[in-house]
Amino acid sequence: MDMHSPHISTSFDNELRQARSMVMSMGGLVEQQIDNAMRALFEHNTDLGQAAASGDYKVNEYEVRIDELVIETIARRQPNANDLRFLFTIIKIITDLERIGDKAEKIGRLSVTLAPMIESHEFVGDMRLMGEMVQRMLHESLDAFARLDAEAAMRISGEDDEVNALYSTILGKIMAHMSSNPNTLDVSMDIIWCLRAFERIGDHVTNICEYVVFLVKGKDVRHLTREDMLLEVTSRN
Amino acid sequence: MDMHSPHISTSFDNELRQARSMVMSMGGLVEQQIDNAMRALFEHNTDLGQAAASGDYKVNEYEVRIDELVIETIARRQPNANDLRFLFTIIKIITDLERIGDKAEKIGRLSVTLAPMIESHEFVGDMRLMGEMVQRMLHESLDAFARLDAEAAMRISGEDDEVNALYSTILGKIMAHMSSNPNTLDVSMDIIWCLRAFERIGDHVTNICEYVVFLVKGKDVRHLTREDMLLEVTSRN
Repeated sequence: MDMHSPHISTSFDNELRQARSMVMSMGGLVEQQIDNAMRALFEHNTDLGQAAASGDYKVNEYEVRIDELVIETIARRQPNANDLRFLFTIIKIITDLERIGDKAEKIGRLSVTLAPMIESHEFVGDMRLMGEMVQRMLHESLDAFARLDAEAAMRISGEDDEVNALYSTILGKIMAHMSSNPNTLDVSMDIIWCLRAFERIGDHVTNICEYVVFLVKGKDVRHLTREDMLLEVTSRN
Repeated sequence: MDMHSPHISTSFDNELRQARSMVMSMGGLVEQQIDNAMRALFEHNTDLGQAAASGDYKVNEYEVRIDELVIETIARRQPNANDLRFLFTIIKIITDLERIGDKAEKIGRLSVTLAPMIESHEFVGDMRLMGEMVQRMLHESLDAFARLDAEAAMRISGEDDEVNALYSTILGKIMAHMSSNPNTLDVSMDIIWCLRAFERIGDHVTNICEYVVFLVKGKDVRHLTREDMLLEVTSRN
C-alpha cells in the first residue's frame, strides 16, 4: 500500500493486499451478477436471470469471509491509524457491495417473467440506459478503490444525480402509461421495481465512492453537500 | 461489559460503554424520527412530517461520530477479540440505523402531501398496522442489543416474515385498487412507497438482530436459513 508508512512485517502488507484483492473479487462477482441480470432482462436470457438470482449466495459468502479476515487482522496485527482506516473502509464498502448484489438478485428474479413482456416495450431503451449507467459507475468505483483515486470517486458519485434525474423522468412516463393502460399494471409495477433497483444501485455506488474519499483524504464526506465535499477533496491537507 | 474478561484499564470499559450508549442515543433518535413520520402520516401532522424529513441530519451526525469513536478506540486501545467484535458490531448496526433514518425521512416527506389523501382511505388501517409492527421491532432490537439478548434478537428477526407477508397482501390489494381507480394512481404509488419504506425498515431491523446474534454467539448468522440460524442460537457452545 503506497499510501502507508512501511511496516516492519511484510506479511501484514500481504494481509492488507489479500483483503483488498478479496474486495475486488467480490466486486467482480457483483458486476457479473448485474451483467447476468441485465442480459436476462434485455436479451431475454432466462438462464442468466436465474444465475443472477441464485448466485447471490457467493457474494454473501465473500462478505462474511472478508469481515472475518478484517477482524482477525485487526486483532492479530494491531494496525496503525492509516491501516485501520483502510480496514474500516473495507468493512463499509462490502456492506454496500452485498446490497448491490441483492438488487441484482431482485432484477434477475423479476426478469424471468418481465423479459418477454418488455421486449418491444416503449420503456425498454430508457431502462437499459439506466442499467448501463449504474453498471459503469460500479465498475469505475471499484477501480477508484483499487487505485485510491479520490478525484475519480468524487466524479462518479456526482453521476448519481443523472441516474436520479433519469429515474424520475422514466417514473413519470411510466405512471402516465399506467393510467392509460390499467390492464397491464403488473408489468408496469415490475418495470418500476427494476428501475428502483437500478436507482438504489446508484446510491450504493455513491456510498462506496464516499468511503474511497474518506480512505484517501481521511475525512468523512458522507452527508456533506456536494459543494462541501468538493472543497474537502480538492483541499491540500 | 459483563461478557468480557476484566480489563486492566477501566477507562477502556468507559469507552466501550460510551460507544454503546451513543448507539442507543442514535437508536432513540431514529425511533423518534419514525414516530414523527407515523404521526405525520396517520394523524395528519404536517409539522412532524417536516421534522421527520429534516431531522435526519442528526442521525447522520451520530453515525459519523460513532464511526470515529470506534476507529479511535481500536487504534488507541488495541482491544482483544471480544471487544473488537463488539466494536465491529457497532459499526455494522449504525449503518442499518442510518438507513432506517433515511426511510423515516422518506415517509416524513411523503406524508406532507399523502396524509390528507389517505385519512379515510381503505388501506390506512393496514398501513398503520405495518408501521407499528416495524416500529415495535426496531425498539425491541435496540433493547436486545443493549441486553445482549441473542434469543430475543432471533425472535424479532423472525417477525420480519410477518411484515413481508403483510406487505405482499397490502401490495396486492392496492394494485387491484389501482386498476379500478387509474385516476388516483399518484396517491396509490405514494402509498406503495410508504409501504415499501416500512418493509425496508423491517429488513434493516433484521440485519441489526443478526449482528446482535453474531456479537453474543460469535457466529455469523447472516445469510443462513432460519432453521440453521435457530440451531446456532440454541446450541451451547
